[in-house]
Amino acid sequence: MKKYIVEGIGTFTLTLVVCLSMLSSFPAATPVLAAITLMFFVYTVGHISGAHLNPAVSLAMALVGKISKRETARYISAQIIGALLALMIYAPLLVSPISGMGDIVPMRDTPEVFSAELLGAFFLAFGVASVVFGKIRDMSGVVVGTALFLGIALSVMIGSNGLLNPAIAISLLVGTMENANTDAVTHMLNFTYIMGPLIGAFLGAKVYKILDKDE
Amino acid sequence: MKKYIVEGIGTFTLTLVVCLSMLSSFPAATPVLAAITLMFFVYTVGHISGAHLNPAVSLAMALVGKISKRETARYISAQIIGALLALMIYAPLLVSPISGMGDIVPMRDTPEVFSAELLGAFFLAFGVASVVFGKIRDMSGVVVGTALFLGIALSVMIGSNGLLNPAIAISLLVGTMENANTDAVTHMLNFTYIMGPLIGAFLGAKVYKILDKDE
Amino acid sequence: MKKYIVEGIGTFTLTLVVCLSMLSSFPAATPVLAAITLMFFVYTVGHISGAHLNPAVSLAMALVGKISKRETARYISAQIIGALLALMIYAPLLVSPISGMGDIVPMRDTPEVFSAELLGAFFLAFGVASVVFGKIRDMSGVVVGTALFLGIALSVMIGSNGLLNPAIAISLLVGTMENANTDAVTHMLNFTYIMGPLIGAFLGAKVYKILDKDE
Amino acid sequence: MKKYIVEGIGTFTLTLVVCLSMLSSFPAATPVLAAITLMFFVYTVGHISGAHLNPAVSLAMALVGKISKRETARYISAQIIGALLALMIYAPLLVSPISGMGDIVPMRDTPEVFSAELLGAFFLAFGVASVVFGKIRDMSGVVVGTALFLGIALSVMIGSNGLLNPAIAISLLVGTMENANTDAVTHMLNFTYIMGPLIGAFLGAKVYKILDKDE
Repeated sequence: MKKYIVEGIGTFTLTLVVCLSMLSSFPAATPVLAAITLMFFVYTVGHISGAHLNPAVSLAMALVGKISKRETARYISAQIIGALLALMIYAPLLVSPISGMGDIVPMRDTPEVFSAELLGAFFLAFGVASVVFGKIRDMSGVVVGTALFLGIALSVMIGSNGLLNPAIAISLLVGTMENANTDAVTHMLNFTYIMGPLIGAFLGAKVYKILDKDE
Repeated sequence: MKKYIVEGIGTFTLTLVVCLSMLSSFPAATPVLAAITLMFFVYTVGHISGAHLNPAVSLAMALVGKISKRETARYISAQIIGALLALMIYAPLLVSPISGMGDIVPMRDTPEVFSAELLGAFFLAFGVASVVFGKIRDMSGVVVGTALFLGIALSVMIGSNGLLNPAIAISLLVGTMENANTDAVTHMLNFTYIMGPLIGAFLGAKVYKILDKDE
Repeated sequence: MKKYIVEGIGTFTLTLVVCLSMLSSFPAATPVLAAITLMFFVYTVGHISGAHLNPAVSLAMALVGKISKRETARYISAQIIGALLALMIYAPLLVSPISGMGDIVPMRDTPEVFSAELLGAFFLAFGVASVVFGKIRDMSGVVVGTALFLGIALSVMIGSNGLLNPAIAISLLVGTMENANTDAVTHMLNFTYIMGPLIGAFLGAKVYKILDKDE
Repeated sequence: MKKYIVEGIGTFTLTLVVCLSMLSSFPAATPVLAAITLMFFVYTVGHISGAHLNPAVSLAMALVGKISKRETARYISAQIIGALLALMIYAPLLVSPISGMGDIVPMRDTPEVFSAELLGAFFLAFGVASVVFGKIRDMSGVVVGTALFLGIALSVMIGSNGLLNPAIAISLLVGTMENANTDAVTHMLNFTYIMGPLIGAFLGAKVYKILDKDE
């Protein structure tokens, strides 16, 4: 039970930090804050749940055999609940739903954005897998935080918002859904910011597992 | 005896760094400098006193049974003395008391600011507790420094100054008391920047202890 | 075989990050991104290939006896292939070949630029050698990442672009070759950004080996 | 012998990085570059010489009994030679000696600047002593780098240039001596940027030794 509470608290905090920093003028870039938040939870509660804080990472860990199917559904539920609870705090800052949406998640649903989210999540899961399969101990949080930072940097430079996290994407989509074109939102929900990270994270964990084996 | 000297020196330095950086144009953000200063003392003198440098952290550690009642009073006294001694160095930079006050501690005493200080101190104490209860060794200073950085970032983005530290708050309030509205100051002294961190830090340490137990 | 795949993936990613960050407005400096990328691969795949991601480093490691001649050729081939594959993604951003070239690799082929690349690669290989010959374990990625950051900083401040990496240089030269003066490019290919790092990295590894011996 | 070569190379590099970064527009602050350079040498050659790279640190280590008198003279000589050799590279950038001087080392020789250099070196040596007397292993470079960063930050915010290093100060003073008022330079040479760090570093190491003992 505790592992789901921990995933909920962690994803709540990560979503809050990422969304507040996109909407505020705090003197630290969003990718840095996101990486530091993930690193913090890897060190403080990593021994309880693994500190995924991301449905794409949990699904990838399930597909490479690190958590059970039953656990996976609960991990992902806890993460989405956490991300939606964060919305209650940052929502007032989304002055106008549409503009907030425009600022954070470009409505573009292009192959470029999809590839960017896929590639970014690939590196995030590649880093998480190196901790899970490898022998990294003391530096685990640094490696996972760095993986997220690198993934965000690459995906932002290629053209997405670098969310790499379906739970945060759902939270943002719900927060701005009211005034948005429902069809567009649904389409995006399915592909760009949901399927991109899910596929990318699976590939990252799988490729790492293959490269690491028998070495 | 040495642990109180160490807490005094550490809180003196932390207060000095935080207040000077708020008043100067040094090319590094205050949260970064604060986190680095705390990390520095965790590594250099953590084995002597724990390097709390913050009455909210010391009280939280007392309430979860990590330091005795007698020690707690001395820890907090040493921290407040250290923070007040720092005032003697940074005071000349508070050009006008009121303006200095306005720049650093907004006179606002809103529930928003109170919640921000509470939430920020929650994460700071959550991180300290993970080092105290957990098995983190080499990365202890990084985790505690990161906890402070994350706490400051969240509280600043929500709306407070991110002090998260009653000793620094008292030092700033004394330094600008002269010209300020005494009632407002007293009120703030009691709640926003004093009670916020005290309650938040206790909750952070308590929640960590509960989550970590039996795991 | 896996070690060459790993070097290819790593150099592909490093080239992509460096070139995209030079051409975009991502809020993190190129040297920081390059250092973080190298650190990431040292931690995640360092146990497979050593994570050189740089022909100058591989040649230096061969000359100080750490990898065989046969391996060296394959390491370098994999790195150059990786860097050229990255070109397919960042090429569209090189709006005009010549301007892209001008922005990234100054056409200057001065002794100053040559010395800057040599000195920068010296420190990179000095750091890699300290990990290979020394007893650094947990901090290996931090030391190698720092070595690259320090090398880039010095070479940029002296006057080069701080590539320090013949594979990235070849990728950039091919990407902008079309419209450039072929003689100038060839000359540069031979000396400034190819021979500078190769000589510098060899000296860095060699000097470290001498200083470290019998200590 | 190797330890003196290492101190020479390290101080040469540190001086070069600090002076070039003060004179260039590299996108990383001088204190960050200085801290990273020192960290780099602590990890790569700390096991050979201790990586002081600073006469104030070497003298402090001698006074607390960590290196012999004979060694101290050689350490300091190697450091000053290294810093003077760096001058040959960065000197051309000191466009006008006097203006260079004015930009980097303010001619002010006030008690404020003296205290700032003393306090900054206090924290640097406090951190070095914690590594030398304590049990910090893997994080040694991070702690020493952080100590330098914290010391520079404090001394810059109080009012000096945050050199905290007599070898770098001598290099800069020689580089700008030509056109400067000899009396002023001599006075400064004796007190502000030479005696400040020497006294501060001794106090930092001594205070650490006292606090750490019998604990």
